[in-house]
Amino acid sequence: MNRHVLSILVENQAGVLSRVTGLFSRRGFNIDSLSVGVTEEPDKSRITIVVYCDNIDQIIKQVQKLVDVVRVVELDAQRAVFREIALVKVNTKRETRADVINIVDIFRANIIDVATESLTIEITGDEGKIKAFTELMESFGIKEIVRTGLTALCRGNNPIKKIKKPIIAED
Amino acid sequence: MNRHVLSILVENQAGVLSRVTGLFSRRGFNIDSLSVGVTEEPDKSRITIVVYCDNIDQIIKQVQKLVDVVRVVELDAQRAVFREIALVKVNTKRETRADVINIVDIFRANIIDVATESLTIEITGDEGKIKAFTELMESFGIKEIVRTGLTALCRGNNPIKKIKKPIIAED
Repeated sequence: MNRHVLSILVENQAGVLSRVTGLFSRRGFNIDSLSVGVTEEPDKSRITIVVYCDNIDQIIKQVQKLVDVVRVVELDAQRAVFREIALVKVNTKRETRADVINIVDIFRANIIDVATESLTIEITGDEGKIKAFTELMESFGIKEIVRTGLTALCRGNNPIKKIKKPIIAED
Repeated sequence: MNRHVLSILVENQAGVLSRVTGLFSRRGFNIDSLSVGVTEEPDKSRITIVVYCDNIDQIIKQVQKLVDVVRVVELDAQRAVFREIALVKVNTKRETRADVINIVDIFRANIIDVATESLTIEITGDEGKIKAFTELMESFGIKEIVRTGLTALCRGNNPIKKIKKPIIAED
């Protein structure tokens, strides 16, 4: 199964998120990550979904047909920038704290909370960077991770809705 | 209606996200933002939901009862850190580019893509910071915004599941 990133512009109505996620779950597709937030138009939200599946074109068509869905676009790494935040709470002792802080600096991450036995770190990047960072942190002991899921925008001048060759579902 | 942030730990199963969002939509609550990603345990995901509603305790109880939901905690600003990414594509001309870059530096945001007529900027922070930044950028013209939705971790040593006074639904 291939990995796909879908950017879905929706009307900001109760129920639309549930309809979108329901469509994936009914087909047994597990959503790897999902993020949704408001956009440049206050009455619209943009959902970014990462999903592993084989027949993405069919899913795109079905999502496009849902009530309150304005537009569906598949994004790929060549023409989009992907970003995600992870908040990572790492065990630290007096002896290991300096090592953790060194790695945080190398990754240009930020320490956002300090406690007696842990540091909470904010790291922003694509999935590869976050994976590399969390793997390094595992040797110190990770108490907790929370991630936003990927969000993405097209590169260049054109907003998602105006890309020249849109992979938009059409029947 | 008050604003509430819920952190929901779930088994990583197809359908659980749909059940959670469905519960909110059936009651007509519009989810302001939602993010979901994997956690320190590979078989679990953590959903962070921002929702405006009056009777949050009742919703927490109902979410807690859903299949594959492990734990529900309400987070507040006193004991949690909140973060979100926004990617903002801003119109720029030769005359205005330097002004945009100055504001980006002040907010410690990052420019992640440059095109002839636009800059794409990544900004990380809480909602207040992102609101202040996007308001400033509106004077230049925003082409597109995509946001991940809030994610959050408890401050201090204790992971979400071990906070001393958990606001966990119990019947």
